[in-house]
Amino acid sequence: MKVIIVGGVAGGASCAARLRRLDEKAEITMVERGPYVSYANCGLPYHVGGTIENEASLLVATEQTFKAVFNVDCRTNCEVVSIEAGKKTVDLKNTNTGEITTESYDKLVLSPGAAPIRPPLPGIDLPGIFSVRTVPDARNIREWLERDIVQSAMNEYSGANTLSKPKKAVVVGGGFIGLEMVENLIHRGLTVTLVEKLDQVMPPLDPEMAKLVKRYMARRGVKIKLGDGVAGFRNTEEGSLEVLTESGKAHKADIVILAIGVRPETALAKLAGLELGQRGGIRVDEQMRTSNPDIFAVGDAVEVKDFVTGEWSLIPLAGPANRQGRIVADVLAGRNSRYRGTQGTSICQIFDATIAQTGASEKVLKRIGDTNFEKIYIYPNSHAGYYPGAKVLATKVIFRKSDGRLLGAQVLGEDGVAKRMDSFSMAIQMGCTIYDLEESELTYAPPYGSAKDPVNFAGMVAADILSGLMPIAHWNDLGDSFLLDVRNPQEIEVEAVPGAVNIPLPQIRSRLGELPVDREILVICRSAQRAYFATRILLQNGFRAKNISGGMMSRSHSIQD
Amino acid sequence: MKVIIVGGVAGGASCAARLRRLDEKAEITMVERGPYVSYANCGLPYHVGGTIENEASLLVATEQTFKAVFNVDCRTNCEVVSIEAGKKTVDLKNTNTGEITTESYDKLVLSPGAAPIRPPLPGIDLPGIFSVRTVPDARNIREWLERDIVQSAMNEYSGANTLSKPKKAVVVGGGFIGLEMVENLIHRGLTVTLVEKLDQVMPPLDPEMAKLVKRYMARRGVKIKLGDGVAGFRNTEEGSLEVLTESGKAHKADIVILAIGVRPETALAKLAGLELGQRGGIRVDEQMRTSNPDIFAVGDAVEVKDFVTGEWSLIPLAGPANRQGRIVADVLAGRNSRYRGTQGTSICQIFDATIAQTGASEKVLKRIGDTNFEKIYIYPNSHAGYYPGAKVLATKVIFRKSDGRLLGAQVLGEDGVAKRMDSFSMAIQMGCTIYDLEESELTYAPPYGSAKDPVNFAGMVAADILSGLMPIAHWNDLGDSFLLDVRNPQEIEVEAVPGAVNIPLPQIRSRLGELPVDREILVICRSAQRAYFATRILLQNGFRAKNISGGMMSRSHSIQD
Repeated sequence: MKVIIVGGVAGGASCAARLRRLDEKAEITMVERGPYVSYANCGLPYHVGGTIENEASLLVATEQTFKAVFNVDCRTNCEVVSIEAGKKTVDLKNTNTGEITTESYDKLVLSPGAAPIRPPLPGIDLPGIFSVRTVPDARNIREWLERDIVQSAMNEYSGANTLSKPKKAVVVGGGFIGLEMVENLIHRGLTVTLVEKLDQVMPPLDPEMAKLVKRYMARRGVKIKLGDGVAGFRNTEEGSLEVLTESGKAHKADIVILAIGVRPETALAKLAGLELGQRGGIRVDEQMRTSNPDIFAVGDAVEVKDFVTGEWSLIPLAGPANRQGRIVADVLAGRNSRYRGTQGTSICQIFDATIAQTGASEKVLKRIGDTNFEKIYIYPNSHAGYYPGAKVLATKVIFRKSDGRLLGAQVLGEDGVAKRMDSFSMAIQMGCTIYDLEESELTYAPPYGSAKDPVNFAGMVAADILSGLMPIAHWNDLGDSFLLDVRNPQEIEVEAVPGAVNIPLPQIRSRLGELPVDREILVICRSAQRAYFATRILLQNGFRAKNISGGMMSRSHSIQD
Repeated sequence: MKVIIVGGVAGGASCAARLRRLDEKAEITMVERGPYVSYANCGLPYHVGGTIENEASLLVATEQTFKAVFNVDCRTNCEVVSIEAGKKTVDLKNTNTGEITTESYDKLVLSPGAAPIRPPLPGIDLPGIFSVRTVPDARNIREWLERDIVQSAMNEYSGANTLSKPKKAVVVGGGFIGLEMVENLIHRGLTVTLVEKLDQVMPPLDPEMAKLVKRYMARRGVKIKLGDGVAGFRNTEEGSLEVLTESGKAHKADIVILAIGVRPETALAKLAGLELGQRGGIRVDEQMRTSNPDIFAVGDAVEVKDFVTGEWSLIPLAGPANRQGRIVADVLAGRNSRYRGTQGTSICQIFDATIAQTGASEKVLKRIGDTNFEKIYIYPNSHAGYYPGAKVLATKVIFRKSDGRLLGAQVLGEDGVAKRMDSFSMAIQMGCTIYDLEESELTYAPPYGSAKDPVNFAGMVAADILSGLMPIAHWNDLGDSFLLDVRNPQEIEVEAVPGAVNIPLPQIRSRLGELPVDREILVICRSAQRAYFATRILLQNGFRAKNISGGMMSRSHSIQD
């Protein structure tokens, strides 16, 4: 069996190594357009920022490793220029020498990845505008940041020009790469403006959760311009750049990072006449087989089934790419492996905080017309409050109204986010309900969690809603209900809800007569716990009451500024 | 309905609060023998150590909270002195005044917890010997540590006695509380000797994993004496203590912490004539009902079904106690809640490291005669190796040979332990197989994990074993097989395996002729990855080969010292 693998990072490299382990006799060729195979592109922003100082650290395995250990004919700087799917041959071009050779294959595996989107805007090719995809990209950015630039601003005393390093960056695009680049450029001492066409950063998040991320970044000094697309770029007279936006603004920049998103690399698939999906990725079956049974595709270039919604999606993530590569190797070796779909688990460091997500967001459910869900906002501590260093975990959990199945979770916090997100991720993979979350037995000691872990707590709150014990309302849908605030007067002095009547929780039982029997009562406190207690008292005394999920904590990011 | 809850911590307090939310009209009395309800006993070691400075921080909810918010008749310093189960009454004694009152109940909930074991050894009641269970215990220990003691050791110049704070501690018992106390006493600047009767610390762990814990603690200066029980205590002439052991040793101590374990408090259950289990805990059904249908019991005093083995067990943990309390409240309110059993998820901080465990250990499986399992040792990085700060996670995973079901996991490391343990815990709860672990989509960005998370990696290694792709052996069962070490000569110079032949991995294919065709070949490398590659090459070339799980990394703690 002769297998040609196109693309030597993540999916391609995983496939090659696994296939060799499964089949010592297979003839395996792995070609990579760039100069490196198996490099850590997820580490590139941190290399730019200097946290990963040595470029060599990013090279997980080299061409030599693949040759010596895996007996793989590994060729870098080697591009596929045509595919004859009928004859089962590919033309390979050595991009150093220009030489073209033709190779036949029994099976072809495409792992071309996704390319950064570079819209054809005026000035997009000006020096100083970079994407972040490859090791050379990172090297070019670092060189640009380390060079001296002429500051033509008047020197107070001499009027002469001075030299300095780049100081101002504009990052275009507020997705994962954009946010990681923002953090890393700030880490290097630059001032950073983030320009994002959408009304929120981090598009996979729901907007009210993204608002927390935006606020956190703004507090760290990032200038964030939402709802304003980039219209073009130009050089200024002082020799730096300007990013021009659709609203007519101009943002000065010594460097511009383009992180608008990625697009599946489908040029090869088109050469091979393969079917593409409606999202523009290569269409594959559960075994990563394309419409041509001898051609497989993996990684960011393919469409995957969203594990929760069942929709075809483009979800470019390293973990899935690696697993898909392994699955193709299995299938080529005659094993019956299948890819289960992608649930979109992702995580991103933002200064001292972490934002993470898994499963379906509310906006995705709304887009597909799914109304069979409820959501909660909770703000538990990352570990026992009596142990120092506990941080609030701003948590949104989405679940099926009809059967309690966990659909999605989004968590932002400065401690313990990954721990909870992995629990939620595992739970979604296994089809857990919120009742399962209630009963989960997770690690607890004071430095790590609470006897009721945030994951348990999410399940308990959700179960109380579905059982009817605790009807809830949300800030964006209050109607003209009676608002009852059960916090202490001191708390209300700090921030009050307009129109809300205050009865502190301990007084509720003795002041029921002050409440309306003919109106729905929405109960408010800081984080919805005391309001829950009050709601229970009211419901059992014949009132119609609902708890506003997340209380004042969710209000701060749920209502319009 | 009149409910009396005996015990106002964890399970009892959870039950009282939940019951009030479910039933506004119930008459709820909660009695607590000690001066505080709802205190954080898990925090006591950290209060002793000073990490939690204020005692008040440990009081999660007060008697007043229970009265004002939950309308619970909450009585501290109130002990049950007799139970008339036939008449459904209890006699309550006010331990301040000695007054005894009789209260009737419709339902009685026992949450008495477990008491530290204090064997009747000579000298056990000497001043300076403490258990760690209650807030007053912690207060007494702190006072003892802060007092001045006379140092009668000759002063070099004057020969006069000097005053100083206690400097030497002996901790008896190497379980969770023992290890937490060791850490916290070291944190306070004491030198600590740990005396444990068993041959290992942390009894729930398998011994080879416990050995890693011991080694880690020893590197931090803890003197650890295993396999030597305590025979008694005595005062020395200088006014300090000595801990005498069964082997005849005497360990000097200015303070002694007894952390030998806990025993379910069953005095009340005996008063009420309730059935006990063979482990000595109160026997309850899935709804936490005792043999008397009007009496429920929760928390450390009851026996629970081990979720994995199905055995009745004593597993004193705060999370289960809290959930059991909620379940009793549900049942009392007519809801059909059931307790699913306990899987023994636990975690403990040891200086900068964390040790955690869930599910069945190898020694428990062996004890119950279960041989349908396999185990692996893996040593993945806590996050991408190219991102600074990655730490090795020493990981043991146990799974069913027949169907791949995950049975247990034990992890030690300095980063990311809780994250992985929660994934394993959730997986065991949901009946995951190792194939599910392979496909799990967990959080990955360079600071948090790897594209193949340690949890995925565990699944992949285990699946390769069960599919026959990678037969494995273990260090404690090598037989007289041929040992092949595929590391580089430089690595072998550092540490060699006696009798092993060295062929570095990249040379294997060209040196197959040097290997025996008639003997089983056990392959060795640092962490079993290169040995896996070599094993695959050998198997496909007709040799009988096995990978030694965990390689040199597991050898360091698997073989006898």
